Amino acid sequence: MINFTFYSPTYFVFGKGTEKEAGHYVRRFGGSKILIHYGGGSVVRSGLLDRVKASLDKENIKYIELGGVQPNPRSGLVYKGIDLCRQEGVDFILAVGGGSVIDSAKAIAAGVPYDGDFWDFFEGKPVEKALKIGTILTIAAAGSEGSGDTVVTREEGMLKRGAHGEALRPSFSILNPELTQTLPAYQTAAGATDIMAHVFERYFTNTKEVEITDRLCEAILLTMIKEVPRVIADPNNYEARANIMWAGMVAHNNLVGVGRVQDWASHALEHELSALYDVAHGAGLAVIVPAWMTYVMKHDINRFAQLAVRVWGVDMNFANPEETALEGINRFKQFLKSIGMPISFKELNAREEDIPLMVDKLGLGENRTLGNFVKLTARDAEQIYRLAL
Amino acid sequence: MINFTFYSPTYFVFGKGTEKEAGHYVRRFGGSKILIHYGGGSVVRSGLLDRVKASLDKENIKYIELGGVQPNPRSGLVYKGIDLCRQEGVDFILAVGGGSVIDSAKAIAAGVPYDGDFWDFFEGKPVEKALKIGTILTIAAAGSEGSGDTVVTREEGMLKRGAHGEALRPSFSILNPELTQTLPAYQTAAGATDIMAHVFERYFTNTKEVEITDRLCEAILLTMIKEVPRVIADPNNYEARANIMWAGMVAHNNLVGVGRVQDWASHALEHELSALYDVAHGAGLAVIVPAWMTYVMKHDINRFAQLAVRVWGVDMNFANPEETALEGINRFKQFLKSIGMPISFKELNAREEDIPLMVDKLGLGENRTLGNFVKLTARDAEQIYRLAL
Repeated sequence: MINFTFYSPTYFVFGKGTEKEAGHYVRRFGGSKILIHYGGGSVVRSGLLDRVKASLDKENIKYIELGGVQPNPRSGLVYKGIDLCRQEGVDFILAVGGGSVIDSAKAIAAGVPYDGDFWDFFEGKPVEKALKIGTILTIAAAGSEGSGDTVVTREEGMLKRGAHGEALRPSFSILNPELTQTLPAYQTAAGATDIMAHVFERYFTNTKEVEITDRLCEAILLTMIKEVPRVIADPNNYEARANIMWAGMVAHNNLVGVGRVQDWASHALEHELSALYDVAHGAGLAVIVPAWMTYVMKHDINRFAQLAVRVWGVDMNFANPEETALEGINRFKQFLKSIGMPISFKELNAREEDIPLMVDKLGLGENRTLGNFVKLTARDAEQIYRLAL
Repeated sequence: MINFTFYSPTYFVFGKGTEKEAGHYVRRFGGSKILIHYGGGSVVRSGLLDRVKASLDKENIKYIELGGVQPNPRSGLVYKGIDLCRQEGVDFILAVGGGSVIDSAKAIAAGVPYDGDFWDFFEGKPVEKALKIGTILTIAAAGSEGSGDTVVTREEGMLKRGAHGEALRPSFSILNPELTQTLPAYQTAAGATDIMAHVFERYFTNTKEVEITDRLCEAILLTMIKEVPRVIADPNNYEARANIMWAGMVAHNNLVGVGRVQDWASHALEHELSALYDVAHGAGLAVIVPAWMTYVMKHDINRFAQLAVRVWGVDMNFANPEETALEGINRFKQFLKSIGMPISFKELNAREEDIPLMVDKLGLGENRTLGNFVKLTARDAEQIYRLAL
């Protein structure tokens, strides 16, 4: 096990009706003038925004609003949010929505106290200072409610990049599974795929003997395999929604990634897909992750066999472990299909002829490879995209 | 799933040599005049205390010392610690040791800013304010390094009781598995049993369909079943020590207990054993938990069968699930024996004739039962003690 630090100071408030406690938690974590940040009209139409405002009013907390966050959130709105917060003396940002809204809020929070261009953080500068943020989550997917990460797309060149820092961990996150019950099945499934991908990025490592982290990863995957089909069959299954929502947080606050070198090639490969076609991140991952697995499998057959046996319930073929490993990947593909996810470029309406452009935007070269389980070159990336056609 | 909050703001620093960063973290979390609290001479003899002091000196942090914490820490030393901290203007307590040292430090931390008798907290008053504490852990067992709990024994009547509160969560905890390599096998095994018991107390619930928490619980148990025999066979197996140490934190910071009603009867039953005979808490649990399981098993055969199949690898007997459930308990007993733990009163040198006294001290009556999976009466408690003879 390699040395690590683990710090997840977010106060999680989980369950039915918990959005009504938003005011209490903003007060507790020191917000007095806040920005409510959200996406499209669904949080307005559903009445969620009104419930949140009533809760803030009860605590006499002043607020302004900024809606309009798009999926794959854009830098344009972040600049607007930074200006607005500075003008109005905002000291706390409350994100009401999914990962895109939370990520946009984090980027604004980092930008407000920073003298330079906030995009610097997305070019590799660590975020050391930010406004405090709270979240009210409406989709189980990105795990941004418990992470110190944010992903934003710059319109110029459609560059999708991430920034990181302890300061980006929310002060509190409110998770009410009821709020996810109105999600279309496709978005639910894409969110679930994102959650599982967050686990795979951590599971595939060359660090040996980190059994506790392996087992915790497998615990989340087993939960998803049980619960996701139940919400696809019945969107109002609260218990299944609840299990998925909490799994989504645990999958990405890094508890299941400590003590090992993580991979993250699949996320980078996917970012080029969703930046180019504006597809749901989870749907892009459903296409990329199995292709990545197939491409790198031979690097460590036993690790793939372990996943197949422990998670997918495949019988170990002791005479031919490679067959077991492959069967695990097949089961994952079948699972993705069964919940309505695409598993090919074709299903995503992505084009073969764009592959060179995507590979080019990855910026790989002599001194830059992708991922850690296998260090991918530009040629590897191209082959993985082709495997996904 | 029932509504819950989860808050684990401790900064964990894990790995080889990390005790040398103590000064850095005391500084980061605002300590300027600190009390170093520890137990017997082993932290002195091993050179650990010197390394910690050197790290504090490097940051120009002033410190005083209070050693002498016993296993099953006593209230007498807590009173002494409170007086000392007040006299010397201590603002931060650094606990260097195992669960007993950390629990003693927490009790002192709660007592210093409190006007009344610190024992009030152990009679049920929640701890809302406390000095900040940091820990350097030397045994994987109690999970106190990540929890908001403390257990202290009052000499008068040998009353062993717990106190709770968010304010008791350490600001930071340093976990270096190397520090546990010199532990005798018996203490290592007792610590491991404590870790597993923390999981069982959360696993056995009447709350339905909390799959994510079930699976996370099982992940820890599977890790322990793999790793504990490896450290018993080779005390210097760093990787196995590391897995156990981190499992011990995750088992008790309550991540694996959220969303469900927990039990905790076994801990209460054991506290009377270790208060009376001053045995290691984990050894007492090795005696009590299997007896408790056997006594309550029929309340939910399927839950015990699930544990047997998923964790102990028992084949499900679909014609007779009770047999499967029972086989799971048998495997647990065999496991405890194999790592050198007692599983009967006899092996602990506990006496049958003391059972009425222990039952009496539990204070059960018409309005007070023990545990939640099955609510135990005084008669139930007596029968469980007798099953353990």
